Amino acid sequence: MKEFELIQHIFQASIMADTRGRDDILLGIGDDCAQIAVPSDQSLVFSMDTLVEGRHFPFDADPVDIGYRAVASCVSDLAAMGAKPAFFTLGLTLPDSDPQWLAGLAQGMAELAEPIGLALVGGDTTKGPLTITLQVHGYVEKTLAVKRSTAQLGDDIYVTGLLGDAAAAVPIVTGEWQVSSERFDYFYERYWRPQHRLIFAMAMKRVAHAMMDISDGLAQDVQHILKASHKGAVLQASALPISVPLREWQPDSAVALALTGGDDYELCFTAAKTQADEVALIAQTLGLECTKVGEVVETGFVVQGYEGELSGWQHF
Amino acid sequence: MKEFELIQHIFQASIMADTRGRDDILLGIGDDCAQIAVPSDQSLVFSMDTLVEGRHFPFDADPVDIGYRAVASCVSDLAAMGAKPAFFTLGLTLPDSDPQWLAGLAQGMAELAEPIGLALVGGDTTKGPLTITLQVHGYVEKTLAVKRSTAQLGDDIYVTGLLGDAAAAVPIVTGEWQVSSERFDYFYERYWRPQHRLIFAMAMKRVAHAMMDISDGLAQDVQHILKASHKGAVLQASALPISVPLREWQPDSAVALALTGGDDYELCFTAAKTQADEVALIAQTLGLECTKVGEVVETGFVVQGYEGELSGWQHF
Repeated sequence: MKEFELIQHIFQASIMADTRGRDDILLGIGDDCAQIAVPSDQSLVFSMDTLVEGRHFPFDADPVDIGYRAVASCVSDLAAMGAKPAFFTLGLTLPDSDPQWLAGLAQGMAELAEPIGLALVGGDTTKGPLTITLQVHGYVEKTLAVKRSTAQLGDDIYVTGLLGDAAAAVPIVTGEWQVSSERFDYFYERYWRPQHRLIFAMAMKRVAHAMMDISDGLAQDVQHILKASHKGAVLQASALPISVPLREWQPDSAVALALTGGDDYELCFTAAKTQADEVALIAQTLGLECTKVGEVVETGFVVQGYEGELSGWQHF
Repeated sequence: MKEFELIQHIFQASIMADTRGRDDILLGIGDDCAQIAVPSDQSLVFSMDTLVEGRHFPFDADPVDIGYRAVASCVSDLAAMGAKPAFFTLGLTLPDSDPQWLAGLAQGMAELAEPIGLALVGGDTTKGPLTITLQVHGYVEKTLAVKRSTAQLGDDIYVTGLLGDAAAAVPIVTGEWQVSSERFDYFYERYWRPQHRLIFAMAMKRVAHAMMDISDGLAQDVQHILKASHKGAVLQASALPISVPLREWQPDSAVALALTGGDDYELCFTAAKTQADEVALIAQTLGLECTKVGEVVETGFVVQGYEGELSGWQHF
C-alpha cells in the first residue's frame, strides 16, 4: 500500500478526519500542508511528544490502548496551558503496515480525540521501528495561557486527581507481575487511560498562577515550575493524594511512587492562598479531586515527611 | 544529561532558538507548549516529515548534512503552498546523546533555518533508533495558499530547477559507487543541499493554479495534482530539465531518474497559458530555471517520448 493511501484509507475512514463544521480547518490531510485559520481572539499553543515502543509503552501492547494513551499524554500539555484542543498531526514509524493494528490505533486515538474536538489534519508515515510522534494544537487567549514561570511567593501548590497509580501499574501492564484480576483491571486502566483535565484547566486558567502537567513525577515536574519562576517549595508527603488500591497494595512505596513515578498526566498548579475557595469550588463543581500538597517559598525544595530519592523519569 | 537539558543546552546555544524581535512567538522552548500569535491577516500552514536513518538518509552520515537536508525537505512543503516560513518543532529519537553529533545536527539545521526566519520553538527528545520528525510552520494569506486541487484544463505544467540529480546521487552518498572527486562533489551537494524555492513560490502564489513539491519523483507527484484536480496530463520527456553532469554521467537513465527519482525538492506547478510571460519573468528575475514540461488535459497521464516505468518512491 502506498504511503499516501495508508493514512488516508485508515484514518479518513475514521471520524478523526471529519472536519465538517470546522471553520478553522481550511485544509486537512491530502495537500503539501494543512491550513488553519486560528480564531482571531486566540493564540495557538502546541506540544510535540515522541513515544517509542519498549520505552514509553510496552512491546506488543494493544494498539487501541497505545492510541488512546498517546493522545492523552500529549493533550495533557494542552491542559497545562489552559487551552482548548483543536487539531493534531501524527508521525507514524511502523515496522510494517498491518491494517488491523492501524485500525486499532486509530480507534484508540478517536476515542479520546473525537469528543474533545481534536481533529487529525496531517502527518507522515514511514517504515522503521515503532515510533509515534504526535503534535497536538490548541487555542487559548493570548494573555490567559498558564505558564510555568509565573508562580508567586506564598502560592499554594495543588495537584489534580491521584498520583502514583500509573507508575505502580508498569510491572502489571508489562506482564512482569501477576496480580488479582480486580487489581489488574484497576491499574491497567490507570496506566492506559489517563483522564484528561482539559475542562478543569480551562476553568482554572484565570485562577492559577503557574501550571504544568505531571508526566515525569511530581517531585521532578514541580521543580520545573520552581526553576522557571525562580522560587522554592515545601511539600507535605502526608498530603499527597494516593488511591486506596495503591495504599493497600504497596503501603511502603506508595508515597515514593506518588512523588517520583511518571505517567500520571495530572496537573500541578499554584494559586494565591486568597483563591483557595475558588479552587475548591471549581474542583467540586467538576467532581475532580484537587489537593493542596505544599506551598511556594523563596528558595530550596523540601518534601516534609519523606526521606527517599526524589529523582524522576529520565530518558538518558 | 537530562532530557530537558539536552535540547536546551545544544539548541538554545545555537541561534535557532533566538526568538528576539519575533512578535509572533509568545513562548518558545521550555514550557508545556509553545505559544504563537499568528498574524491576523495570515493563516497557518504546516507539514510534518519523519526521517529514519538507513531509509531517508544513509547510516553514519555527517550530522550537519542530515540537519540541513531534514529542514530543506520539510521547508519544501511550505514553498509548495506559497507560504513564508515561521517556526518549527523537532522530535528527535537518538540511540545515545552524543553532544558533538547533536551540535552538528543543530548547525546543519541552523544553516538553512536561520536565514529564512524559521525558529525552533519546541520538540521532544527520546532514546531509540535514530529518527527525526520535523514539523515546519509557515504563514500565508487565507485565500492565497496554493493547493493541489485547483489545476485547470489547458494549464501549462512547470518544474523548477533540475531533476534527477538527487536520485542519481544515492549510490554516491552511500559509498556504494566510487566516482571522480569532481563528480562526487557535484552530486554530494545535490543530494544533501537541496535549494529551497521559497522566494520563487511566494512570488508565484498569485499566478500558479496548483502547486506541490517533488519529493517522490515528478511522475508520481504530478499525478497527485491531477487526482486532486480531477484532470489528466501530457508531459514531454524531451522537455525535462536535466543537468549536464547527469546527462554526461548517465545518458541512458537520466530521463528515468528525472521522472521517477525522488529527493529533488523542486516545485511542480500549473499556470494558465496566458500567464506564461509572467512565469518567465518571475523565474528570470530570481535567476531560477523554470521549465514547461507538459500541460493539463481532461484525463489520463502520458509521458511522450518515454517508455520506461513511471512508479516513484514508496515507503511500503
